[in-house]
Amino acid sequence: MANPLTPDVLVDPVVLTRALVDIESVSRNEKAIADCVEEVLRKAPYLSVGRLGNTVMARTDLGREQRVVLAGHLDTVPINNNFPSTVVDDLIYGCGTSDMKSGAALALHLAATLPDPGYDITYLFYEAEEIESRYNGLALVAEAHPEWLRAEFAVLLEPTYGVVEAGCQGTLRALVRTHGRRAHTARAWRGVNAIHAAGEVLRRLQDYRPRTVTIDGCTYREGLNAVRIAGGVAGNVVPDECVVEVNMRFAPDRTEEQAFEHVREVFEGFELERTDSAPGALPGLTAAPAREFLAAVGSEPAAKLGWTDVARFAALGIPALNYGPGDPLLAHGPDEHVEIGKIRDGAATLHRWLAAPSF
Amino acid sequence: MANPLTPDVLVDPVVLTRALVDIESVSRNEKAIADCVEEVLRKAPYLSVGRLGNTVMARTDLGREQRVVLAGHLDTVPINNNFPSTVVDDLIYGCGTSDMKSGAALALHLAATLPDPGYDITYLFYEAEEIESRYNGLALVAEAHPEWLRAEFAVLLEPTYGVVEAGCQGTLRALVRTHGRRAHTARAWRGVNAIHAAGEVLRRLQDYRPRTVTIDGCTYREGLNAVRIAGGVAGNVVPDECVVEVNMRFAPDRTEEQAFEHVREVFEGFELERTDSAPGALPGLTAAPAREFLAAVGSEPAAKLGWTDVARFAALGIPALNYGPGDPLLAHGPDEHVEIGKIRDGAATLHRWLAAPSF
Repeated sequence: MANPLTPDVLVDPVVLTRALVDIESVSRNEKAIADCVEEVLRKAPYLSVGRLGNTVMARTDLGREQRVVLAGHLDTVPINNNFPSTVVDDLIYGCGTSDMKSGAALALHLAATLPDPGYDITYLFYEAEEIESRYNGLALVAEAHPEWLRAEFAVLLEPTYGVVEAGCQGTLRALVRTHGRRAHTARAWRGVNAIHAAGEVLRRLQDYRPRTVTIDGCTYREGLNAVRIAGGVAGNVVPDECVVEVNMRFAPDRTEEQAFEHVREVFEGFELERTDSAPGALPGLTAAPAREFLAAVGSEPAAKLGWTDVARFAALGIPALNYGPGDPLLAHGPDEHVEIGKIRDGAATLHRWLAAPSF
Repeated sequence: MANPLTPDVLVDPVVLTRALVDIESVSRNEKAIADCVEEVLRKAPYLSVGRLGNTVMARTDLGREQRVVLAGHLDTVPINNNFPSTVVDDLIYGCGTSDMKSGAALALHLAATLPDPGYDITYLFYEAEEIESRYNGLALVAEAHPEWLRAEFAVLLEPTYGVVEAGCQGTLRALVRTHGRRAHTARAWRGVNAIHAAGEVLRRLQDYRPRTVTIDGCTYREGLNAVRIAGGVAGNVVPDECVVEVNMRFAPDRTEEQAFEHVREVFEGFELERTDSAPGALPGLTAAPAREFLAAVGSEPAAKLGWTDVARFAALGIPALNYGPGDPLLAHGPDEHVEIGKIRDGAATLHRWLAAPSF
């Protein structure tokens, strides 16, 4: 197959978005698109290129004082009668248009057209973001080539509809267990009902007032919720166990440990087992490249409440944020699309930031 | 096969118990034992005999003022390395020894040896008590031949270890549902958590103080228990439904309707759905034959808290109680056994009651 990412295509981020969408790349099938991207990057004399699986890295080494990362994943969720792309008025429809080939197109467009940026730039086009964490290209790079991620600041081009979404909240799941003693319900007083005992767990959840925390101008709203409850042996048996699964979403000023300590305090007196957790990420908007970036965007940042790959950068001590032309509400849906104007705005903003002669 | 229930066997309720145990009769396989029992009963000139499926009825028609029923089921739970019977000291081991071939042996022994009782007696040996209600021989008789059950009083020879257990409690199951609105847990404030809302349901259950009711000297203890709880959509979703299944055990002074009304009051404000119920049975110990029976036993009656077939008699307006030589705690277990002394005591008590010249 001839590489569709020709120089004519690379100079126009809108045309490039369509070209990337039209290379099918459902998770675990990213080889074709990664090959095309790698070939393009290797043609740029000012980039050095690396590859790990179907993740492609390219970087400038211009001796700038600061280095920034622009990152986007190449994979999509499964196609849903939305391949290849179509254009209706100023909208491009198709699988991955929003999440996140329009974002990846911005990075690839810059890589191909910006030989002399104000910061050194590391471009990362990675695989398998939409599936289990163990396949995630960014996670694999962090393990195999952590030096590829070294930078003062990172932008993930995930869909944010042109808004800067900074940091992310952490998430923690735990099981709260109550115990009792089985008995026939005809002689219930011989038993202890573990489901009744879970009433106090639910009461504490209902009474819980989550914190709202503002960091670097971003407001995070925490939450603590029961996401599952189960108990019962049979229709005539006083049950001896009840399990409540809770999910805490915590602002990035708490570590996972601190969040778990907090949950432990809430459920003091109950058996508690942490089942999984992922750290949040501080918005980190005080670093110089971040401030320059915000100035280029020209609008206030918002807090990212869900968990995203920016936490992988945060875990390495690198401030990171999400900024992309796609609409997150359209991601993964059958009518996924992206506004052509948002792609052009995004390209202009990133050019303003990275090509600026001011630094 | 020669009928093992010979005259020599029938005169001794202990020997007869072993003989009945040694005719295998797991539920739905009662033909052989019913054939043997029917043949014995048809040989007694003072009995008229009927049969429905594998249920056998025999009755005297001596023109007595009152009629009593002696009833026992012929089936057992599945064999569990406990067939045929064995004797160790004064214990008979084997499937059905306690539940309830020792009780059935008492009735068959009386039928074969008591031509001239003080009451007219209806003997019922019925099938399929241990399985689904639709196969229950007593239920089938109540539908097809209700006249077979007409009497002033009934004794079920279920295992009670020689104690009179009178009446039975009713049972009712219902679902209490709470509703909410789904949302991503990262934006939990947009949702309403249905599991949290179930906390109030559990609080009411925990605060609930069940009644204790004494009727005819029998003390019934009610109970209201959650027997199952379920809710949850996924680990990151605020759940929109939670279901609590409750089981109410109610004293026989309440009807099923009254019991449901009571449960409805307890959970006022919540969606409630009754899933099943069965009425209780009043002890009915004031009828003349019941008073004579209690005098013959010579000990105080206790309330039956579980649900038993006495409720089927109660539904027909016939006071009924449980009284049998087996130990209910051994029923259905692999080491099921019966004390020979309890069989002899039971036979003597029933003789005292039914052969008494006083009436």
